[in-house]
Amino acid sequence: MDAMKELWSHFNEIRKIQYIDELLGWDQSVNMPKGSIKGRAEQRQFTRKLIHTKIKSDKTGELIKNAEKLDNLNDIDLALIREAKREYEHAIKIPDELIAEITKTGALGYIEWEKARENSDFPRFKPYLEKMVKLRIEFAEKLDTGPTLYSTLIDLFEPGATYDWVAKIFNEMKSSIVKIVKKLNTSSDKPDQSILKRHYDPNKQWELSVEIIKKLNFDFNIGRQDKSTHPFTASISSIDTRITTRIWEDFLPACIFGTIHECGHALYEMGFSKEIHNTFLADGCSMGIHESQSRLWENIVGRSREFWVYWYPIFQKSFPENLKDYPREEFYRSLNVVQPSFIRVEADEVTYGLHIILRFELEKMMIEENLQIDELPQIWNSKFEDLFGIVPPNDKEGVLQDPHWIGGYGYFPTYALGNLYGAQIYQKVLKDNPNLPQDFKKGEFSNLLNYLKENVYRYGKIYRASELIKKITGEDLNPNYFFKYAEDKFYPIYGF
Amino acid sequence: MDAMKELWSHFNEIRKIQYIDELLGWDQSVNMPKGSIKGRAEQRQFTRKLIHTKIKSDKTGELIKNAEKLDNLNDIDLALIREAKREYEHAIKIPDELIAEITKTGALGYIEWEKARENSDFPRFKPYLEKMVKLRIEFAEKLDTGPTLYSTLIDLFEPGATYDWVAKIFNEMKSSIVKIVKKLNTSSDKPDQSILKRHYDPNKQWELSVEIIKKLNFDFNIGRQDKSTHPFTASISSIDTRITTRIWEDFLPACIFGTIHECGHALYEMGFSKEIHNTFLADGCSMGIHESQSRLWENIVGRSREFWVYWYPIFQKSFPENLKDYPREEFYRSLNVVQPSFIRVEADEVTYGLHIILRFELEKMMIEENLQIDELPQIWNSKFEDLFGIVPPNDKEGVLQDPHWIGGYGYFPTYALGNLYGAQIYQKVLKDNPNLPQDFKKGEFSNLLNYLKENVYRYGKIYRASELIKKITGEDLNPNYFFKYAEDKFYPIYGF
Repeated sequence: MDAMKELWSHFNEIRKIQYIDELLGWDQSVNMPKGSIKGRAEQRQFTRKLIHTKIKSDKTGELIKNAEKLDNLNDIDLALIREAKREYEHAIKIPDELIAEITKTGALGYIEWEKARENSDFPRFKPYLEKMVKLRIEFAEKLDTGPTLYSTLIDLFEPGATYDWVAKIFNEMKSSIVKIVKKLNTSSDKPDQSILKRHYDPNKQWELSVEIIKKLNFDFNIGRQDKSTHPFTASISSIDTRITTRIWEDFLPACIFGTIHECGHALYEMGFSKEIHNTFLADGCSMGIHESQSRLWENIVGRSREFWVYWYPIFQKSFPENLKDYPREEFYRSLNVVQPSFIRVEADEVTYGLHIILRFELEKMMIEENLQIDELPQIWNSKFEDLFGIVPPNDKEGVLQDPHWIGGYGYFPTYALGNLYGAQIYQKVLKDNPNLPQDFKKGEFSNLLNYLKENVYRYGKIYRASELIKKITGEDLNPNYFFKYAEDKFYPIYGF
Repeated sequence: MDAMKELWSHFNEIRKIQYIDELLGWDQSVNMPKGSIKGRAEQRQFTRKLIHTKIKSDKTGELIKNAEKLDNLNDIDLALIREAKREYEHAIKIPDELIAEITKTGALGYIEWEKARENSDFPRFKPYLEKMVKLRIEFAEKLDTGPTLYSTLIDLFEPGATYDWVAKIFNEMKSSIVKIVKKLNTSSDKPDQSILKRHYDPNKQWELSVEIIKKLNFDFNIGRQDKSTHPFTASISSIDTRITTRIWEDFLPACIFGTIHECGHALYEMGFSKEIHNTFLADGCSMGIHESQSRLWENIVGRSREFWVYWYPIFQKSFPENLKDYPREEFYRSLNVVQPSFIRVEADEVTYGLHIILRFELEKMMIEENLQIDELPQIWNSKFEDLFGIVPPNDKEGVLQDPHWIGGYGYFPTYALGNLYGAQIYQKVLKDNPNLPQDFKKGEFSNLLNYLKENVYRYGKIYRASELIKKITGEDLNPNYFFKYAEDKFYPIYGF
């Protein structure tokens, strides 16, 4: 079994460098002085090159070959071989020059994207986007792991997923969402969000965010929360997971749900079984599964009526000027407004899927159907109108809103898969623990967390998403759980 | 000149890993959650091993050999060859097993030291100290760069210094300090420290500490200040220097002078010329020279009468309950009390040298004269009585107060050398800029900083301390400047 041991040790070392790189990134977003970027960029270039070189080395190839000869391996060993092989093959198939070109175009393009978005100036961004599409097509051709080019790119984020599989699910999702949204739109008793747009003291928001994640069992002994422009989660080892949040003084949900969302990611990372701590398998199963956990905690738990039975009186005490006389049920409804909107990151949990479908269809066209980038804004807008019934007033609120496309393609779908996985997993949790919502009313979340740890988190990257969802729920990904969840939740909120 | 270029590039890479290691350390002291230490320890083990392996590699030896063949090298190239050679020879002379043994003994011993100090229990610490002395003797024997074993160890921190050289200076220092302390002791008008021991709001202390270093031209665009148990300075690149301070609610100087002290170190690190940024020469010339700058800013500037002409009214406004009716001159005197005390880190700038002499003499006995570690506490106490006229009541306030000896020997002398270098450099600054103290009265410190940058900081590690002090002041290290500074400052404070 020495071959297996060697493979573990080799990839544990790679994981260690990834953690170091993660600290460099976390520090850059949270602490680093503004003028220090050049030094930091060189440091991260070094760590990333070191990771890449180690993965690509002949040693990796040999270790994998030796390990593959072994019999009677357990699931964990098999998973390491699978992941090691995946990384190794990616590394040897893609020329270093192509990676360098993608990195450079991404870095330059990101700066241009920021300026282009600021001024709603798509032509400024166009050449960079054009180039990145070309590079990513070349990348997919070289990698060639999926049945089609776009499938190959999707597989990078959601291993095992293909375009056809996602498209089938998204088609069902589209019609169900449209149906729900249409119905909600006919309501004569729609909830109103204005209460959330008053002024909320930032220090109190921060204190409450900390109080909430303490109750959610975020472990401050091996974690911390800070502030950053965009909330994110960073794992600096299996016993060091850090989240960030942002605080908007005039919109309460930004901080509270930003915190709960990242806390969901962190609970996942904190819940890996000790066996795989600090190994290459100490990672989320897929982006979709990871996102399912942030959304489960944020939306299914954090925006539930029961959650606010416990928390609303505490919020009323913190913000009496806004909430003292405001009824709890109305506050709960205000957190669950469903309406078409232009910006993805501000969308509610129902219409969110439509934002993703739009991007998914456009990515397919860019990667496989030779879509002319000149025409992208116009196609964005017309597709947007088809889906939402409204047209973005400008490209800033349209095609320029997200930076993802100056990095790659295939990531967006995982966000929507997260909603679907999350709802399916949660129905199983509820089936096995029908009294859980009663816990939430008492500010008690450890039964939920323990269940998720036992059935989801501890496995890390041992199983593929398709295996994991079956292991947890007994069936393949089934979007109907999300539709049922959405109908059961939102119809009553809208008075049906 | 390719050989030189390659040597630079090789050592720039090593420097980069050192910076990454420094961030890992900074984060550990400032941000890291308590329960995350195991992961961090493994990460630092990795970075340190990587640094060591690169320095020790055959490649290093070859690059040095090739560079040494070149003619007409400038001072900077020559300095790199000198430093590269020094590091390489250290690395190849000391077996990895010995380094591992020292690291392990140091880590275990540190934990035991903490407990031993807590309970004033020297026997508990003794076996670890005994072992470390043995290991460091072996280390010095293997390294064998100085005329004696202890000289070899001193040279690690103060390159070029020997025991004889230091002993000669310290002998002069001892008699001068003893003379000054004796005279001050006969004063009938001694300053009184009690005003500093009132309650000072920690938030206001923090704000003032930030305000002060802003005025001292600490560059927050490429630096930051945080809190930690023990103040320290960390350079994470040549454009990212971070300091920490601590706040004691009932002792004002801890924060204020801790901050100014570390700011002095940071101004040095921020002042390296661009030419050597992020290179192996972007480092202090020696520990003694580095310490000279922290002490120059802390003691010569920060504890000067002129400094407080500007700052005292501001402090009075922040702490009216303590300072409103307290005269400025008395406050200034309270900051400059000279008196024998047991604890080195709390000592004033005059008696400080005696604490160092005690350690210097004991280190010599431990490394070269086979001092029995059993007898160390007793010898400490009797030597302490000789120097200070008082005997520590227990080992906690005696031999167990510092952790240094579970790491190595030869570091302590550099602290006192810092005082001497600092005074000598400052007299030269004053000679060239006699009006500087008038600046301080206006809260203006950029003329001082610019002079130090131009004449000291920009050189980094290009010159050895003996060359640098001559370059700056035109003569070798001369302790008389410190004695004169001390007499001129403290005799008036004590009414002479």
